[in-house]
Formats: sequence, C-alpha cells, structure tokens
Amino acid sequence: MSWFRNLSKFSTITKPPRKTHPFHHFPPLTFLSHHFTTTTTNNHGGLEPTKPHEKPRVVVLGTGWAGCRLMKGLDPKIYDIVCVSPRNHMVFTPLLASTCVGTLEFRTVAEPVTRIQPAISREPGSYFFLANCTSVDTHNHVVKCETVTEGTQTLDPWKFTVSYDKLVIALGAQPITFGIHGVHEHAIFLREVYHAQEIRRKLLLNLMLSDVPGISEEEKRRLLHCVVVGGGPTGVEFSGELSDFIMRDVRQRYSHVKDYIHVTLIEANEILSSFDDRLRRYATKQLTKSGVRLVRGTVKDVEDDKIILNDGTEVPYGLLVWSTGVGPSPLIRSLDLPKSPGGRIGIDEWLRVPSVEDVFAIGDCSGYVESTGKPTLPALAQVAERQGKYLANLLNKIGKADGGRANSIKDIEIGDPFVYKHLGSMATIGSYKALVDLRHSKEEKGLSLAGFISWFIWRSAYLTRVISWRNRFYVATNWATTLVFGRDISRI
Amino acid sequence: MSWFRNLSKFSTITKPPRKTHPFHHFPPLTFLSHHFTTTTTNNHGGLEPTKPHEKPRVVVLGTGWAGCRLMKGLDPKIYDIVCVSPRNHMVFTPLLASTCVGTLEFRTVAEPVTRIQPAISREPGSYFFLANCTSVDTHNHVVKCETVTEGTQTLDPWKFTVSYDKLVIALGAQPITFGIHGVHEHAIFLREVYHAQEIRRKLLLNLMLSDVPGISEEEKRRLLHCVVVGGGPTGVEFSGELSDFIMRDVRQRYSHVKDYIHVTLIEANEILSSFDDRLRRYATKQLTKSGVRLVRGTVKDVEDDKIILNDGTEVPYGLLVWSTGVGPSPLIRSLDLPKSPGGRIGIDEWLRVPSVEDVFAIGDCSGYVESTGKPTLPALAQVAERQGKYLANLLNKIGKADGGRANSIKDIEIGDPFVYKHLGSMATIGSYKALVDLRHSKEEKGLSLAGFISWFIWRSAYLTRVISWRNRFYVATNWATTLVFGRDISRI
Repeated sequence: MSWFRNLSKFSTITKPPRKTHPFHHFPPLTFLSHHFTTTTTNNHGGLEPTKPHEKPRVVVLGTGWAGCRLMKGLDPKIYDIVCVSPRNHMVFTPLLASTCVGTLEFRTVAEPVTRIQPAISREPGSYFFLANCTSVDTHNHVVKCETVTEGTQTLDPWKFTVSYDKLVIALGAQPITFGIHGVHEHAIFLREVYHAQEIRRKLLLNLMLSDVPGISEEEKRRLLHCVVVGGGPTGVEFSGELSDFIMRDVRQRYSHVKDYIHVTLIEANEILSSFDDRLRRYATKQLTKSGVRLVRGTVKDVEDDKIILNDGTEVPYGLLVWSTGVGPSPLIRSLDLPKSPGGRIGIDEWLRVPSVEDVFAIGDCSGYVESTGKPTLPALAQVAERQGKYLANLLNKIGKADGGRANSIKDIEIGDPFVYKHLGSMATIGSYKALVDLRHSKEEKGLSLAGFISWFIWRSAYLTRVISWRNRFYVATNWATTLVFGRDISRI
Repeated sequence: MSWFRNLSKFSTITKPPRKTHPFHHFPPLTFLSHHFTTTTTNNHGGLEPTKPHEKPRVVVLGTGWAGCRLMKGLDPKIYDIVCVSPRNHMVFTPLLASTCVGTLEFRTVAEPVTRIQPAISREPGSYFFLANCTSVDTHNHVVKCETVTEGTQTLDPWKFTVSYDKLVIALGAQPITFGIHGVHEHAIFLREVYHAQEIRRKLLLNLMLSDVPGISEEEKRRLLHCVVVGGGPTGVEFSGELSDFIMRDVRQRYSHVKDYIHVTLIEANEILSSFDDRLRRYATKQLTKSGVRLVRGTVKDVEDDKIILNDGTEVPYGLLVWSTGVGPSPLIRSLDLPKSPGGRIGIDEWLRVPSVEDVFAIGDCSGYVESTGKPTLPALAQVAERQGKYLANLLNKIGKADGGRANSIKDIEIGDPFVYKHLGSMATIGSYKALVDLRHSKEEKGLSLAGFISWFIWRSAYLTRVISWRNRFYVATNWATTLVFGRDISRI
C-alpha cells in the first residue's frame, strides 16, 4: 500500500489520517475492470418486488408537470417513491422563453425532483434514477430501464429493472414536425433547459458574427433573422420576449447591428387559436407594433440557412425555433397498452390504464379511451398538474385502504372520477403586456383581459406557481435585476 | 413576392405591414449561396488603418483580467477600442470553484466585455469580435483573425484582419500537463465557465449513477471519488468547496450514497507553497478535518477511470480536476516576438514589447525580457489586473500627447515604469474558513490570518472586486440563498 504510505507521510504534518476514510476501501483495479466487462453483456439486477414488511412502491416515469405534481402529493409514509427520468429536475415551462434572452437565469426554471419530494433522497426505499424507461412488463409488474450517460466515456449504459406495486406513466410528449424534412437537424425546439441554452448561445453568436468586418449586408440580415414557426402560446411568448430583447437590449448593446435584427412568426392558421377573438386581435396588434412580422404560411422544407414555404417562398434565417405542438413519442407508441384516439396511452376516468393492473397514465402521454366517450384533453401544463394532484390523492386513498400492493386494488371504493375544469389561459406578448383568458371553454363567454394588468397577473400567477421558495425568490430577484440593469448578455 | 402577399394577407386583420421592415430587404437566395462559396476560399477584408479624422485604434487581444482591466481604463474619447477574443465575457476566476457545486450561479462569475467597457457597443469605431487571433504582422500593424463558430454548421470560420495603432496582447496562458499522457482526454481544468459546467454535470451524473441498482460497491466508490491534482490555490479552493458540498448537501440530498463520496488532493510538493508556513499547516489541518485526503505524489499516467502515480499506485476516480499551473500557449510560442525566459512574450518595464513598434503585452502571456534583470512575475489575477490598469493609464497619457497613432510614439515622455507590489494572497479552504497572507513576498514577515474572520474578509474582498453592481448583487443573493436553502442540485 504505497499509496497509504504516501498519505501517512503527508499527514504527519498535522495528524494521522482519519479512520473513517481508510484508503484501502478502494478495490484493486483488476477487479474493477473485470466488473466492467461483465456489465456490458448482462442485465444487472434491479429493485426486486417489495416484501410484506416494506412499504408498497410507486414507480413514476417522467419528471414533467404531471409526474412532479404527483410525487409532491404522494404520502411517503404510505409509499416508497421511485422516479425514473432522464432529467433530475422539472422544467417550469411557462418561463422557459424568458431564459433564452437572459431575462431569467436557466436555473430559476429548473426545480430538482428531490426538492419537490424530499423523501426521494431521504427514505431508504425511495430513489431517483437518471435513466430512460425502455419497456414495461405489466404482467410481471416490472419496468426496464437504461442509465443516461451522455458525455461519459467510461461507462456503457447500465440496464436495470424496477419492480412496481403501482406504476404511473408520465412520460410527456414530443414535438411534432409533420414529417417536414430538416426540422430535427436545423430547428431548435423550446421544451427543455438545454433548448433554451442552445437558442441563447446561437442568438448571441449570430449577433457577434454579424458584426465581423467583411460580412455582407445580406449575410448580416440572414444571421439576425429569427424565425419562429408555430403561433401557439410558446411561439407567441418567445417572439414577444425576443422583440423585447431587441428593443431594450440589442439596440443599446449591439448598436452596430441593431437595424438588421428581425423576428418573423410563421403560423399556418391563426395565432393563439385557443384564445378569445378580442385577445387574439390585441395580440396581433401588439406583436406587429413591437416589430414581429406575422406571416401566414406553411413550411414545406427546412434547409440549413433557409426555410421553404408551400408557395415556394424562401425565407433565409439565422435562428429557427420550432413550436408547432406535441404528439406521442416512439416509446409511448411502442408500449403494448390500450391507446386513445391519436395514439396516446388510453386511460379511463380514474386515470387508470384499462385491462392491466396497477398502471396509471397522466399528462401529455395519456388520453381517454374511446369507451369513456370523452375527448382527449389538451396537452397543457394545467391538465398535467391537475391530473398529478388527483392521482396522488387517489393513490394515497388506495394505500390507506391497504390497496397499495400489486394486484390488491380489487375491492376498494376509489371515489369520484377525475374531472378537468379549465381555469383559463395566459400568454405574454412582450412589452409588459399579457393576455389572460378566463373562459372555461372556447365557446363560453367570460372574463378576458389584455395589457399591463394582465401582465402583472401573469407574473404574479407564475411567481406563486414556481414550486420552491428558493426559486420564487430567484425569479423575483431576476425580474428585478433585469428591470434595473437590463438583460445579461454573457455567452457562457 | 408571394411572401409579401402572405404577409399582407395576414396583416390586414390589424393594419398594413410596417414600412420600416419591408420583407424585400432579404436578398434572393441564389446570391446568398454564391456569397458563401466565395467566403470559404478568400480572406475577407477587415478594419483598415485608421484615417486622420478618426480616433486612433487600440486592439486588445484577450478578455481575461489583464485585457478587461485595460479596456475598463482606456479612455474612449481618445481611442477606439477593438477587442478580439473567443469569449465575450471576463471570467471572475476566484469564484469559479464555487460555481461547480452550485454555491454560485455560473452567470455571476461572467462579466460581459460590453458591460466592462460600454463604448465597445456604443462607439461607431469600437467593436468586439468573437474570434481567435491567428497571427500578428507587426511590420504592417495588422492582426489576422478567424471567427469562432462552434456548433454552427452553416458557417465556415471567417477570416479577417484588423489594423491597429496600438496592439495589446493579453492572451493569457494555458494549463500545463507536463506532457503526461491522458490529461487532456480525461481531466477537466478549472479556468473557464464551461469547465465549471462540465465538472458540475459530471459530479451530479456520478452521484446519480452511483445510486442505480446493481452497481457494485467498488464502482460506486470509483464514481464518487473526486481527485484534484495540484495543490495551488485553485486546487485547494476547489477541494474545500467540494468537501463543503459533500458535508452540507450530499449527506442530506443523496443519503443513499453519502458514505461513498471522497475527495483526494494530490500534490507533488507542498500545498499552497506560496503561503506562510503557519497558514499552510492550518490549511492542511482544516482540509484533513473536513475529509479531504491529502496525498503527496506525482502523476505518471492518466487513464479513463484511474490515474497511475510514479510509484505505481493506481487511483481509481470518477471525476478528475487538473490544476497544476499554466504555461505559454502554442500561439504565444509561435509569435515572432522577443521572449522572456520561460517562453512568454518579452516586455520591458513599461510593458512594451522591445524591438517592435506599438505592441504591448500584459498578464500571464507576458514576462520581462532578460535585459531588464527582473524576474518573471507570477501568473496571478493580481498581476494581470495591475498591469492592465497601468497600461490603460500609460496609453491614455500617450494618446493625450498625440502619440496614439501608429509609429508616432517616439518623442513622448512616458513616465515611470510598472512596479508590481504584491498585496497578499487569499484562499478559501471550505467550512467558512480562509487564509489571508498579507506579506509582500515569501521571505518577508507580515500579517497572516486564518479562520472565519479571513473567510469573511475573503468574501468581502471578492464582493467588492466583482466588477458590475449587477454581479455584486447576484453574488450576494447567491451566497444568501445557499446559506438559507442549501446548494442547487438540478443538472441542467
């Protein structure tokens, strides 16, 4: 143990090494290497089915609005909670657009799972696994998983299994591209923090590149043309933030190129189609006023420096953000479970997946099966959050009635079904203006607001919905700092 | 113009398109494509020599402590300032170690150049170019540059030239690896914000991977073994931050794996060799107490999951941070300029590069030529900052005396030479403890402090040295938040 000798030699300067960390805890390396070769070929254990003296185990797939709200509400005294997701945090999506232009820090929109449900890091039987679910075996009550190891060359993805008593699938959806060629290669979506980071880096890179001597006028215009495809709330909010950034910050900090930067929003139908007519007109007017060009058109093809519309128009761009809604992911399609019209995982009115035991699905990945006679709910944070809350209560109730174990749910009265009540929609459009549509459905009449007051409501509503006090505090600080000092433009 | 028709069609809902942004500003795409093909083969213009009616131009290469302090002090009424650097912000390096473990946000340690010297974005003749300098032609007073375009597939690096009246080379240094195999491939340095981001992502990934079912005890220990090579202030501060993170946050938030995580600091000689003996003993004692294993050893080889010491000991690791000092970069070595002993750019006592006109060098890339009889100054932020300040005053003085143009400096009295006076050294060692060594040189006697009071001095000193009020505010907020809520652990 020459290593240990060295350690002693050095430590005699002060005191002997601490007994609690003896170095020979490290295994001989030959054993380690051997261990590695076996790991690549086999499937490596996992969490066995729970034993009678243990708490029943709820396995949650996904860390979006639905899964996180569910975990927050689950009672860790009743259940052990095991979460499997490729990201260890929830993204507070309504504020994501603000992070792209530096109004908010990236970290303020990310809430770690273990802060949402502290039992996951504290309870001996609760875990968070940074992994993707690869398949579900409902017959044996087991999910198969594979670790996420991007960037680490020393590890092959590690396969493992997790047995469940109850399974909640909350895997969300993925952006739809209508099969248009080049979207995945050249456009950036706006759903994860790394998307926002990529948009920010590209925007700042283009701003700086366009300032380099010798760049032609045309190339400057192309580099600084930001095109947003999709006029839903995400596309509109991002366009609004971007035009705010241009008007308030770019003009001042990039004065050489300020006349070259433009935002174009392309939508095949109407922008904000779910909103009240009056609000829609107001949004159109405000966006146009702040320099966003609204274009009705359908994209046919995406190349690396231009998009081509159905009528043949070519639109050169420097930054392309794609936000045309979401649909079921390949994993969701591949699962051998009942489906809703549209290919989501089919659920009944209690959010249970019919025909299999102990499996539930919530959020964007789920939809009512045809036999319920109900339409699929929109893919909204609001729906996912409400479903997560409902299901947490339902599972807690089932657990209290001794139905928490696998295959033990049969004779329990599970109470009222889930009913979705739309509380209204909100969207910002930049320039301290927002839309608040408080109608319960598109056909109904009801309160709708536009302008500064709604912007204030929007900010307040979001501030109270950001989950932890830490992040509430950060968001408030960020907003205040941006107001006083302007947006941050360091490209890190 | 079918595009324009679409635009009108849409806009009639509200009002006609704004005349200020007509779409036909976009060039036909054929022209754009043509433009691209020519750009890859030619050298593309640049900033011509300044004309008599323009201000003289100072070109600054680099955005480290030296370059940024210089730009801050230059008088934009006298000079146009052109900065060329692959990053648009200065990194507040003393706080970088804190960002790795979430004590501080990454953004708080990055200060955009245009916030340090606002004239760069406002004056018509001042610019920031996101580019690398590739060569310097001192005869013609021209630097050659190439844009940084990482991640952008649509652009080849763009070559351009910038003529200067005065050139300040402040390109810094690069980490030295003593030619040890595998360091560049497997170790992470701690000099840029992206290094801190990489360390953070890897640390959190390893924490989560080690929790996956089926991972052996040995592999857990390897994944969670953080090895720091180099016992200078950076290595010691990082080790201290890491052990703080482990003791305060990991034990609580990753309770399943808390007994497996360890920090080892490897140094060939003594840690903090520039500090007072008493302080060094204190640091050794404190680090050992907080669980950092100090090992005297020399690294022979670095593999992807272990390092091998000179005596043959194999040390498995999950995270390897390399911090063994800096040396001249290949570009600095390649420049056809006088050199100091050790290969830095040679300067005289006025920070001028001898034998060429109008070229200065400051910071880690520069060192006194032998004829001055002075030793090379240490590669410290303190030295760089002081040199930047001195040179800004010198150049302002020269400019006021009409010596700002190229080749016009001859008959100007340039005053006192640069004299470096060491103001003392500071380093944190975790657990709210720091060292402050206020001796002016290693041999001298003088004030030295250790413990909580120095930690408080350290925090206060840094808080007042962070350049903008925005970042001062953020750092204070971050520190307060960490104290109240603990460190952030979302892996974004």
